[in-house]
Amino acid sequence: MTAGSDSAAWCAVDLTPGRARAWHLLGETVTGTRQIEMPDEGPGGQSAVDLLRRLCDGMPAMVCGPGLGAAAVAVPAKPGMIVPVPLADGLVHALPGLRQDSPPALMDADAARIAGFLALNPRWDGVICLPGQVTHWAQISADEVVSFQSFLTGETATALAAAPSLRAAGAGEGWDNAAFGAALETAMSRPERLAAGLAAIAAEAVLDRLGPGQARARLYGLLTGAELTAARPYWLGQQVALIGPDAAARPYAEALQRQGVPTTLADEARMTLAGLVAARRRIAGAG
Amino acid sequence: MTAGSDSAAWCAVDLTPGRARAWHLLGETVTGTRQIEMPDEGPGGQSAVDLLRRLCDGMPAMVCGPGLGAAAVAVPAKPGMIVPVPLADGLVHALPGLRQDSPPALMDADAARIAGFLALNPRWDGVICLPGQVTHWAQISADEVVSFQSFLTGETATALAAAPSLRAAGAGEGWDNAAFGAALETAMSRPERLAAGLAAIAAEAVLDRLGPGQARARLYGLLTGAELTAARPYWLGQQVALIGPDAAARPYAEALQRQGVPTTLADEARMTLAGLVAARRRIAGAG
Repeated sequence: MTAGSDSAAWCAVDLTPGRARAWHLLGETVTGTRQIEMPDEGPGGQSAVDLLRRLCDGMPAMVCGPGLGAAAVAVPAKPGMIVPVPLADGLVHALPGLRQDSPPALMDADAARIAGFLALNPRWDGVICLPGQVTHWAQISADEVVSFQSFLTGETATALAAAPSLRAAGAGEGWDNAAFGAALETAMSRPERLAAGLAAIAAEAVLDRLGPGQARARLYGLLTGAELTAARPYWLGQQVALIGPDAAARPYAEALQRQGVPTTLADEARMTLAGLVAARRRIAGAG
Repeated sequence: MTAGSDSAAWCAVDLTPGRARAWHLLGETVTGTRQIEMPDEGPGGQSAVDLLRRLCDGMPAMVCGPGLGAAAVAVPAKPGMIVPVPLADGLVHALPGLRQDSPPALMDADAARIAGFLALNPRWDGVICLPGQVTHWAQISADEVVSFQSFLTGETATALAAAPSLRAAGAGEGWDNAAFGAALETAMSRPERLAAGLAAIAAEAVLDRLGPGQARARLYGLLTGAELTAARPYWLGQQVALIGPDAAARPYAEALQRQGVPTTLADEARMTLAGLVAARRRIAGAG
């Protein structure tokens, strides 16, 4: 991608595993979107080059997410750095992810979403929580990610809802908000009792004592409660911005509200695009 | 099954989901075994009647495990009660499971294994831990199950090892015992950090810092450590008998040994058969 004029055609791409997506733009105006669903695909599933071909029709691209080999940048760091990546059919620009040595943690496209949020909210200090299959909590100060902490809560919930006993209990369906709240409280006071709470769901399902939507809400309540307990240093006394797909963000919003934490919901797609647009503005400005 | 002579042919059956199995016997002498693998099948998968047909060739049967509709008995209770179950093609006898109202818990064939262990070890007091896809901890006193507590640790481990990030980290393979021990200690001191520990495994795998067998051992270390913390009232200051499939029992044996708990390993198949044989002896003696 060369630094284009304000109205040049280009492609903003998010290669997050499970759901690659692209925006086609003229300058900063979106002219179309594309999405490729790859459910249950881990990192390194389809090749990034193949995905870019299917998403971009050869347009110059600004890309976030894994697969282009751009080395993640160690925190503390400003998100939104740009790395040129020469490919067989042209040059693309990548926003590298962020990494932390201790505790070991890695985020890919979420770094671009943080960059987008900070581009739209300059000088914002606080904590950004990015729920998803992996959830990241990032401490933001002076436009930098100072530190972050990751939790595999989303993948755990998905995997458990499909496990034999919990699948039979209906853990894939419905939502009983009172049951979520009760399980959340239990997990925050006794987080080590996760597997015991799961076995109780399975037993109550067999004994026919579970109402509709209770299994799923309790599963998410237990997992979210344990995560909130472990992430307490991140949210206690802080303002929190939540950036994630609606379904993933909702339990966090509910849980943080119950803890009295001031929480802002930011649209995930909008933040992603804002991060990629801000990055392109910088290379266009420098061109 | 009618009360037979000592050398009558009969069939001892364990209908545990995932792996139904049967012993063909003449009196108390095993003349053959059968097993039907049903991986990833939840409760109520194949019909118990169909399984009995395939396992028993019409012989009278003494059966443990779910599916015959024998109502579970509330604890405190002696395991090894016997319930006659009339089926279309004859009468079988079932060993019902055990249930507890609070906390809600349910065990099926494991009740027969406890009965077998107590038949072989009369007047044994202590705690029996039955590892498996669901693990039960049962407090035994005066030949009764006084109370028990269940954990969905096995299903959680299986589900997580197949989740995208952990599958990519190799969580299905190998075993690094030092990594298991370290993760166990971590989980026992900070059990709420399970999902954080899982995310660290995924991140270290991408950063190429994981040795072979570390992902799996750490996954099991984290889950076993959380369970041991929650089950502490069961094992602290007790003698523990472990009855479970080898692969499921090994992490528990290792973990209990590290906590200095005197632990006896009892062969799961042998305990199951002993429970069924002891039950048949009672109805034969009464005949």
